[in-house]
Parts: sequence; structure tokens; C-alpha cells
Amino acid sequence: MLDCKLLTDKLLIGKQISRSQLTISQGTIYNEDMKAELLNAIRPTTLIRSAKLIDHLGLDVTIASETFQHTGSFKFRAAYNVVLNDDAEEFIGVSSGNFGQALAYACKLLNRKCTVIMPANSASVKVEAVRSFGATADLIDVNVVSRYERLKQLAAEHPNAYLASAYDDQLVIDGNSTLGDELAKYNFDAVVVPVGGGGLISGIIQSFCRNGVMTEVIGAEPAMANDAARSLKAGELIANENEPQTIADGTRTLSLGKLNWPIIQNGLRTIVEVSEDNITTALKLYFGLANLKSEPTGALSLGAVLENREIFDNKKVCVVVSGGNVDAAIYAQMII
Amino acid sequence: MLDCKLLTDKLLIGKQISRSQLTISQGTIYNEDMKAELLNAIRPTTLIRSAKLIDHLGLDVTIASETFQHTGSFKFRAAYNVVLNDDAEEFIGVSSGNFGQALAYACKLLNRKCTVIMPANSASVKVEAVRSFGATADLIDVNVVSRYERLKQLAAEHPNAYLASAYDDQLVIDGNSTLGDELAKYNFDAVVVPVGGGGLISGIIQSFCRNGVMTEVIGAEPAMANDAARSLKAGELIANENEPQTIADGTRTLSLGKLNWPIIQNGLRTIVEVSEDNITTALKLYFGLANLKSEPTGALSLGAVLENREIFDNKKVCVVVSGGNVDAAIYAQMII
Repeated sequence: MLDCKLLTDKLLIGKQISRSQLTISQGTIYNEDMKAELLNAIRPTTLIRSAKLIDHLGLDVTIASETFQHTGSFKFRAAYNVVLNDDAEEFIGVSSGNFGQALAYACKLLNRKCTVIMPANSASVKVEAVRSFGATADLIDVNVVSRYERLKQLAAEHPNAYLASAYDDQLVIDGNSTLGDELAKYNFDAVVVPVGGGGLISGIIQSFCRNGVMTEVIGAEPAMANDAARSLKAGELIANENEPQTIADGTRTLSLGKLNWPIIQNGLRTIVEVSEDNITTALKLYFGLANLKSEPTGALSLGAVLENREIFDNKKVCVVVSGGNVDAAIYAQMII
Repeated sequence: MLDCKLLTDKLLIGKQISRSQLTISQGTIYNEDMKAELLNAIRPTTLIRSAKLIDHLGLDVTIASETFQHTGSFKFRAAYNVVLNDDAEEFIGVSSGNFGQALAYACKLLNRKCTVIMPANSASVKVEAVRSFGATADLIDVNVVSRYERLKQLAAEHPNAYLASAYDDQLVIDGNSTLGDELAKYNFDAVVVPVGGGGLISGIIQSFCRNGVMTEVIGAEPAMANDAARSLKAGELIANENEPQTIADGTRTLSLGKLNWPIIQNGLRTIVEVSEDNITTALKLYFGLANLKSEPTGALSLGAVLENREIFDNKKVCVVVSGGNVDAAIYAQMII
């Protein structure tokens, strides 16, 4: 079924790594019943071609926008797959952002309990979104207890609950791989994907591998939060010392996940480090030339094109917009 | 082929008008070759269902967004159909907004010359958009010469040019009717459509009539620019005395077009008059709950739902977002 050789032969060009080291998983998505139920629940990505943006960049670029996915980001693909494939009655996640909303909504749809641990100073619109889906927002003072200490406490109190990681979970990667399956049909030369914990990009790599697709996957990471780019260069998983304060708040992770790292290490050659200015410029271009509301993290992939235009020359490029959830005040400031 | 009887019987309930007065046209779109070429050129509308918006309104609402149509509004459907069906070498239009861009791009695609008459104080982003598609932006000082005087001048100078109206043209109505054909498949109880010159709503009525669809069409017009609502009540075409200064700049027309009026008069019962506040609230709801960037005019249909919630109770409603082109400064001010 799987022909990763083609893909990996291409990826291995210029890399000192033997094929036997490859550990790219097919994932568990090939349970056809579950796959059908997952595909029925998610909304296909929205492909947008803007003549103005194409002219402006002088580049054949297609936008794959997950901003209209349920709960406004790709995270719903992952969250729904997690809840669908485990029979726990309760799910506990840690998130001040998109994964929390996605997990809460997936639990609502599948009739499970859900608790999302969030810093007490999270944007109220995000806390409200989690609650609007019937989940408990467990607000913590991060100066008193860290998110992961609180997760341990809750896990001890609810020993049967599923502790859901936003990225470091094979079910998360499998769920995200459905986006790869959609993009695999279009024969893009390159697909550019935002990188935080690595959940989305590892899912897309896994899918392209499964589908025998030659499309190159390119990561887009804020220069201020370049742990994945540094890891790829060093050949080992490197973590940030502190949570990076990039405007792309979806990438404020300390490091890639342990399951995501080997897929990323073997599945791609390039992670473009994007300046904060280019994140803002990309977000403005989406607003002005494509009528697309993107969150800063979602604009990373177009930011990578601005940052390193020459590597995309004469290529049929797809930029993945991972989500659209952003506070009005921040957005208003960024577009003017 | 056409069974308007079903539709008109329903529409006639409570109206003192005999069926013999009906003049709804099938349009010329049934030239199958032209239709195929038109459908190939346009981008299907983007249907969005937001759980957050549905919960917030307590209403089964689907968004049909034309914001990702080529040039960012439904106007491209009309403009392309006009240029496709006339062999003039040059097209002249009057528009400071969406029709100008759409006509310019249609002419670019079909290799025709294009001139768009625009007030010299039009937003520079709109002038640039017209020029970016290779058209001439004919900038006039409206204190010296009116748009239509200038149109007459240009028409005299270019006797073979096609003078393209943004709404009062059967080819425009036919082009816009393609959106109706898309929506006809979904068995909505009601479709709510912004009304300016009446080009879009008359196209949708024409399509539903052609398709024998029972979906009710409801107009959404700014209360500040309520000439269509007044006309419908009076049973005769009434014009505004001055260009109304509503935030919904796409509806700053003096009156419905002569071709649009009879279709509107016979094809719908209700035009909701929307306050400026509800236009802004609707635009904010799209931003916050659906990740959708709408222009103020595009938000009119959701504004109508807010304005007159009870007439939509227990209905499967579709709100048409006619376009997404809005200046960043205006938009930023509206969302915060």
C-alpha cells in the first residue's frame, strides 16, 4: 500500500541519513470505518486562488485555508480523531487557544466530558468559546501552578480521563493527515505549513508518504521561535528555554513533540524562519488581496514565501493557513 | 422548461396582482455553450456553517460568501457574462467599487479594452485594483462633471464601445443568476440578499423561477437607502433624491434598475430595512464567530436577520455575503 521510497529518496538528496533510519508511520487512519466518520465530521479545506495575490507575488500560489474548519482552525481534525478513537468518558487538554476549542467541540459532538486547562489571563473570547461548547474552562494562575503540574493534578483526580496533547499523539497526527490527503490530489510542487508543536506538518508528511506524493513539504516557523529549524540543522531535538513571545501565538511551544520530531526530521529539508514583520505583511496581504482573515500563526506560510522568495520560483506552491482565530484588537492593529 | 407558476403562486399570497402582470424573464443563460464557459470562469460560492454563529443566533443559518469570487465580489459573475456575450472590443463602466474591478478583470481575461469611470477621490486601493487588471481608470472630479455626463462623453468618443451597467442589463442579471443556480440545490426556506441597484437579487429570483425552486427571496437594504423597500410598498419605482451615505457603500444607488424593478416587484414580498448599527454588528459577528471578512454591504443580509429575527424563526436560512472588499482603516474601526 505504502510507497514511501519514492518520497524519501527525493527527500534524502543531500542528507546524510540512510533509509533504514526512516521511521515515518502510515498512521492508524486506514481503519476505513473510522476514517469515513472522521471525514464526515470535518469540513474540507477551502482552496482560494486570488489573481491579485498571484500577480503581486509573481508566483503560482494557492491558499489552503483552515479558517473555516469547525472552530476556526485545523485543530478540529485532530481533536475529533482523538475523541472518536478512544472510549474515555472525559478528555482533558491544555490550551489557551485553538486546540482547546476544537477538543471542546469534538467532545460536545461525541457526548463526552471535556476540561480545558487555560491560563486565567487568556483572552476572554477564547474562554467563552470553550465554555460555549459545554466544556469546563479550568483557569489557573500560571505563577502559582504550571499548566503541566495542573494537568498532573487533574489526571490524578480523574484517572480514567484521556490526556489529550495538541500535537504529540499519533491520533492527532492521523487526524491532521486528512488535510494532507486533500492536498495530495493537486500535484503542488511545494506545500508550506506553519510549525509549532509539529502536529500539522507531521500529519501532512505522513499523508504524502502514504499517498506516494512527491510534493515537497516546507516548514514555516517564526524566527523568534525557531526550535524546529535549529533541531533540523542540529539533527537532534532542541527546545526553547522560554516560551517565545512571537505574534504567532500558536507556535509558542517549547519544542516539537517526541512523535512529531522523527517524522519532521526525515520528511522535510527546509524550515523557513520568518520575521515578525513578514508575518504581519503576510496577514495584511491576505486581508487586502484575498479577503481572507488569517490569524498571525496562519499567515506564517505566506510569510515564509516573502522571507525566502527564491526557493519558490517557478513552483506551484500551496500555502496552508492553519487558522483564523485572532482577537479583534490585535487584528485591527495589524491591518492598518 | 420554466415553471414559474409554482413560485409565483406562493409569492402572490397577499398581494393584489394578477399573474398576467408577471414579467419574470428566464434570461438568456440557457445558451448552453455560453453557460458552460461562464461556469468555467466563475468560482463557486463558498458555503460556510459556523456552529458559533448558529448557536449565537439560535437559527439554522448558512453563509454563502462571494468574498472569494474573482475580484472579491459577486460582480464578476455579471461582468464576465457581459463581456463574454458581446463582441465589442471595448467596455466602459461607471464604478468606484466592485463592478469596476470585475469588469476590468473580465476584460483582461477575454482580451478586451476596458475603461472604468471613477470619482477622483475614490480609495486609491480601488483605483489601483482596476489598473492592476490593465484597465484605464478614468478619474473625474464629480463637482465638475457627473459620472453619467462623463459616460455620455466617452460613449460619443468611442461609439462602438459597450456601455456596461452594473445592474440594469439582462446580461448582468443572467450572470448573477448563476449564484441562484448554485443555491437552488440546497432547499433553503429563505435566502437573504443585499439590495443596491437590484442586480444580484433579480438574478437570484430569475434563477429560482427558472429552477422551480420554492425558496423565498428576502431583500436586505440599508434603512438609510431604502428606495427599494419604499418602491415595493408603493408598487412603483421610487428613487432616492441624493446618494445615501450609508456605510454599505455598495448600495449607494439612486434607485433600482428598470430591468431589475419588475423582477423584484413580482419576485419578492419582503425587503428588510437594516440600521447602520446592525450592519456593523453583523460584520463583527462574521469576524468573531465565522472568521469571515465581509464588506459592510456584504453584511446586510445578516444585518436583516438581526433587524427582524422573528420572520426567520424555524427556517433554514441562507445569508448571501455579496463581497469582501473594504478599506483596512474602515474595517479596523468597525471590528473593535
